[in-house]
Amino acid sequence: MVTPGNRPFFTEESSSDVVLARSGPDADPRVKQIMESVVRHLHAIVKETEPSQAEWMKAIQFLTDTGKLCSEWRQEFILLSDALGVSMLVEAVNNRKPAGATEATVLGPFFVPNSPHYENGANICLDGKGEPLWVSGRVLDMGRRPIAGATLDVWQASPEGFYDVQEPDAQPANNLRGRFTADAEGRFSFRSAYPRHYPIPHDGTVGKMLKSLDRQPNRPAHVHFLVRAPGFRSLTTHLFTPDCPWLRDDAVFGVKESLVAAFRKSSDAARAGALGLPTPFWEVAWDFVLSPE
Amino acid sequence: MVTPGNRPFFTEESSSDVVLARSGPDADPRVKQIMESVVRHLHAIVKETEPSQAEWMKAIQFLTDTGKLCSEWRQEFILLSDALGVSMLVEAVNNRKPAGATEATVLGPFFVPNSPHYENGANICLDGKGEPLWVSGRVLDMGRRPIAGATLDVWQASPEGFYDVQEPDAQPANNLRGRFTADAEGRFSFRSAYPRHYPIPHDGTVGKMLKSLDRQPNRPAHVHFLVRAPGFRSLTTHLFTPDCPWLRDDAVFGVKESLVAAFRKSSDAARAGALGLPTPFWEVAWDFVLSPE
Repeated sequence: MVTPGNRPFFTEESSSDVVLARSGPDADPRVKQIMESVVRHLHAIVKETEPSQAEWMKAIQFLTDTGKLCSEWRQEFILLSDALGVSMLVEAVNNRKPAGATEATVLGPFFVPNSPHYENGANICLDGKGEPLWVSGRVLDMGRRPIAGATLDVWQASPEGFYDVQEPDAQPANNLRGRFTADAEGRFSFRSAYPRHYPIPHDGTVGKMLKSLDRQPNRPAHVHFLVRAPGFRSLTTHLFTPDCPWLRDDAVFGVKESLVAAFRKSSDAARAGALGLPTPFWEVAWDFVLSPE
Repeated sequence: MVTPGNRPFFTEESSSDVVLARSGPDADPRVKQIMESVVRHLHAIVKETEPSQAEWMKAIQFLTDTGKLCSEWRQEFILLSDALGVSMLVEAVNNRKPAGATEATVLGPFFVPNSPHYENGANICLDGKGEPLWVSGRVLDMGRRPIAGATLDVWQASPEGFYDVQEPDAQPANNLRGRFTADAEGRFSFRSAYPRHYPIPHDGTVGKMLKSLDRQPNRPAHVHFLVRAPGFRSLTTHLFTPDCPWLRDDAVFGVKESLVAAFRKSSDAARAGALGLPTPFWEVAWDFVLSPE
């Protein structure tokens, strides 16, 4: 550590330069690089908004309360990052895709690593609730050739807007989640229930913030997918229903226009019978296109 | 709450605009204004630094751990704000002073509201430790006229670098702190001990950050003052010793050049006798100039 005798004193004008000049020669280069951006922008926020001491204290308390809310079961700072669009932006800068590849979106907190493996066509709606849904499609490479053996993890909220892990007493274990394997033509299919929108947890600091900003807490209806195959980049994404009232108002900004899928309602009794579904039922067909690793 | 059908979807390019467009018509105007600045700068940080998902998770964990460290006795988010120069900047934008007025600096966590009132000349060093110090001066208005009856709260760390409240077992209660009243000529004086530098708490997340940045945790030696008089803006400030090795490296950026005082060591036995001090002793004279309310 050095203590040069000619370091500048702090002034309002030079504030971020003075702070950044303190990093020593043995600083971690990446931490230093990130903190240079963080410090400059934090100081810019203070200069733009000129918070009173009381407002600054409120911000300190907000961050403290957010930390206190975090537990094994809840991560309020991730939720804050989600609600400010930061998580989606981090996702975006890490998953820039070549044109033609399926776009990615946030993983969310409800993925479970080892959900049950099913044969194609199986029904993951274990309690029979909600309107039936048939999902089918292919996993393809950038040349639209099938990726045989690709695995698809699938999970979604119930028609009441809760994931199985949120309601261990009200839903069967692994309800509305499962793993499928694409066949030799890259094809997959499964039966499920039509998804519904649901609110992010809004009884904490993030909920208070949304209320102060007159924002609503709902995520639009979607089905999650994690599609993986050797030699390809893993794809974390959702398919969104086009008719959800919150489609253009996702509280965590996860919707990409290219991921709004053509879910269609059908009363075709012959097709329903062939698929093992009652009528009416919903149907969506979707091809996932993976980019190379 | 409104759910317009033509809201734009999130894209990397438009990310902060999309987030900010979500604030509704009933948003708190000040919260909305502050969050506009916060969101734009947070997104700029992500775009500049392009954190990996693992780095983003590290940031989430850092903030979570910082919140968890906060207790009745410790405020790690204030410490983080201090160590990034944010507290001093907030102080600066709230306390712009007319030329000639004494500059302000941070209050810090060791002020005690009702410390004992003493007559001028009293000794606040209750355990007799350290090198003796004589502090005297005046409280003046902008026209350099005395402000009779101004009160001065004074507090400082021990020669070992701890405040009384940090060492309730090792120091007498109210050691090195007290309240004085300026006389008819605005004069005040007291006896104390020569202050020493001390580290901010660095066994938590802020300490880890300082280590990653190769920064040291010490604050340079100083005596705190809170000077108040009816009709004048309260002045929270420090006097810094000019010889401290950390003078230009304050871990919380509290030093302003105008607050470095001419502490002088004296062996004048006659003067020492008159002041009730042994030789050698330290001496500093300082006039505080208050701006009108």
